[in-house]
Amino acid sequence: MLEKEFQEILDVGISLSSEHDLEKLLNLILSKAQQLSKADGGSIYLINKDKMVFKTSRNNTLLRKLGPEKIKEIVKTFEMPVTKQSLAGYAAVTGKPLVIPDVRQIPKDADFHYDPSFDNKYGYSTVSILVVPLMNKENKVIGVLQLINSLKDDKPVAFDPAVNKIIFSFSSQAAVAIENTQLTDQLKEAHYETIFRLSGAAEYRDKETANHIMRVSHFARLLAEKLGHDREFCEMIFWSSPMHDIGKLGIPDSILQKPGPLTPEERSIMERHTIIGALVMKDSEVKIISQSRIVALTHHEKYDGTGYPQKLKGTEIPLEGRIIALADVFDAISSKRVYREPMPEEKVLAIIREGAGKHFDPELVEIFLSCLAEVNEIKVKYADLEEQADKFRKLEGLDLKALL
Amino acid sequence: MLEKEFQEILDVGISLSSEHDLEKLLNLILSKAQQLSKADGGSIYLINKDKMVFKTSRNNTLLRKLGPEKIKEIVKTFEMPVTKQSLAGYAAVTGKPLVIPDVRQIPKDADFHYDPSFDNKYGYSTVSILVVPLMNKENKVIGVLQLINSLKDDKPVAFDPAVNKIIFSFSSQAAVAIENTQLTDQLKEAHYETIFRLSGAAEYRDKETANHIMRVSHFARLLAEKLGHDREFCEMIFWSSPMHDIGKLGIPDSILQKPGPLTPEERSIMERHTIIGALVMKDSEVKIISQSRIVALTHHEKYDGTGYPQKLKGTEIPLEGRIIALADVFDAISSKRVYREPMPEEKVLAIIREGAGKHFDPELVEIFLSCLAEVNEIKVKYADLEEQADKFRKLEGLDLKALL
Repeated sequence: MLEKEFQEILDVGISLSSEHDLEKLLNLILSKAQQLSKADGGSIYLINKDKMVFKTSRNNTLLRKLGPEKIKEIVKTFEMPVTKQSLAGYAAVTGKPLVIPDVRQIPKDADFHYDPSFDNKYGYSTVSILVVPLMNKENKVIGVLQLINSLKDDKPVAFDPAVNKIIFSFSSQAAVAIENTQLTDQLKEAHYETIFRLSGAAEYRDKETANHIMRVSHFARLLAEKLGHDREFCEMIFWSSPMHDIGKLGIPDSILQKPGPLTPEERSIMERHTIIGALVMKDSEVKIISQSRIVALTHHEKYDGTGYPQKLKGTEIPLEGRIIALADVFDAISSKRVYREPMPEEKVLAIIREGAGKHFDPELVEIFLSCLAEVNEIKVKYADLEEQADKFRKLEGLDLKALL
Repeated sequence: MLEKEFQEILDVGISLSSEHDLEKLLNLILSKAQQLSKADGGSIYLINKDKMVFKTSRNNTLLRKLGPEKIKEIVKTFEMPVTKQSLAGYAAVTGKPLVIPDVRQIPKDADFHYDPSFDNKYGYSTVSILVVPLMNKENKVIGVLQLINSLKDDKPVAFDPAVNKIIFSFSSQAAVAIENTQLTDQLKEAHYETIFRLSGAAEYRDKETANHIMRVSHFARLLAEKLGHDREFCEMIFWSSPMHDIGKLGIPDSILQKPGPLTPEERSIMERHTIIGALVMKDSEVKIISQSRIVALTHHEKYDGTGYPQKLKGTEIPLEGRIIALADVFDAISSKRVYREPMPEEKVLAIIREGAGKHFDPELVEIFLSCLAEVNEIKVKYADLEEQADKFRKLEGLDLKALL
């Protein structure tokens, strides 16, 4: 192997290690592997428990022939069991690569066989295949890289053994990078689930179910996306918004759960939940926590300056606060409560529309009203279910052993 | 460069990427760099904002001469400003490596100079030095690797330029691995801080400060460590135990905050907080959440089977539950409350001792009593402070702008 090639593999390894978005990482791995092996196409499968999940695929010939739109349509994620019968499954089960110069020559009695249905359907002709298990440091197979049709003068030829060696080295780096990205994704998921569980538990003091905060988070992210914000901002608002009412933990039941209207003094205590929430979250270097401090403090401000606790006006109110204000009120008035049926949709939308420039940022109202189909999808997906209501109040007949 | 060497660097890169413990990773980087360059010693600095933090150091000659105990004593983490004057600082500021065949030949008017105080103090003689900035993919310097005295026939010689090239490649891999480990550490820290903030906020409903859950977490980890459990178990109990009382969110103020003794019916409602906590955390694939479900459900069981909610007995109670039971009761009786002064220590210990085999696992009581010095350190470090008490109740005079 040439020094130049080795240096390239080192550089590629660093690129892989620096990419923390799984989808982008898999695309990067596949395109680099294609480049190194001159393969016309390829795909990556990841192992998830006892399933192989088809994640990423590229095929230059079909891309030229069918165009990117059609390709997107036919390349869908699918799952299959991990068995020796498929080529990818064989590599996954045995941990050994398969180097096949011509799939038409695979003996009938081999453990594995080539499934030509994709070729037949889209008029492609697979000849040579290289299947490489992606193994982590403990030699556990975490996925499979499959490369198709190494090209020489535009004709499929057998994969070059010298190049295959490079691909094997490369695939070890790829496996570690994939595993690291999965690990950070798991850490993030664990964090977010904790936020929803704890914030949701706090919601039970004055709501029947915790789905309110789920819906508000989704509405808020939708608004942020429609405003054209980057992924980080949209994620941040999604994960910080469940904590917007955390300050209600400092409000007594007698006020929080009072059925009738509040006296002026009670209202002023109730309004403190914004400040208490900000205090819970103050002085943090963690982005999601300082973000939730801002959301807690400002989600009851109104665009015309009549909100609380600071009577901020217009864009003095941080965008996050303006977004949650709209998402929160919309969900509150459009959901069912014990003491009242949900408002009819026209009435809800009339209130939102009328609030533009008064309660709400008019630009946000406009965006919100332009994506009602997506809003309704969220409402349906995270609807309050009867069986969730009063979950913590009726504890009879629970199987405690099942909880251990 | 030889193929064998390159393959080794690739393998080392994979080892680095697979190591997620920062301290172990830095040691691995340093020992590999020493091995590649035949250096007698070396150290790694990491950049933290405007400071360089001295993290890891190895010196074979001094290790032989002084022994591991003495080395541990003299090698302490320290911080220094990032300025061009020191060798490591020069590499950090300029992003360029320094290759110094003999430190005694550094011109007096050079930007940087070599500080001989360590050599003088411990009778070491530094001659050749190689200083390599650790740069991430965006060419930002995240740390510095410094190697001392490349040895040939046990004599310090200048570092070999051919080897230096390998070290430069290696250092890029090292930088990415360090950055990835720091990223996962940050993700974990963010998660844990969220747990403490949200669980702490929930505590304010019936406690004056949230330090109770801090102390209980620390006591619990201490017990797990003294029992000889591995780092993962100890971490898990530390981070899940703040959530042990989260089910109190489902208990009304009228019971939770009742000053006098509870009626039997009120007590039975109060006891539900164990089950509610388990329900908040049920059906999760996230380890920390399922762990906190177990802690919530079982931390009021008693060793003799007289606890609640399941009247589990002895080792039927999961270890986590037995640990938190002891830590929680100890903290409750040894802390000050609004309505009473803290109990004198002898009385607290007498209660714990007497509870062995009745309320508490006798083995845990024994371990706990054998590490009272460490227990007291935790008590002092996380003591309830007057200014924290009633933080959320007295909100007058707060500067809200400072919270935005």
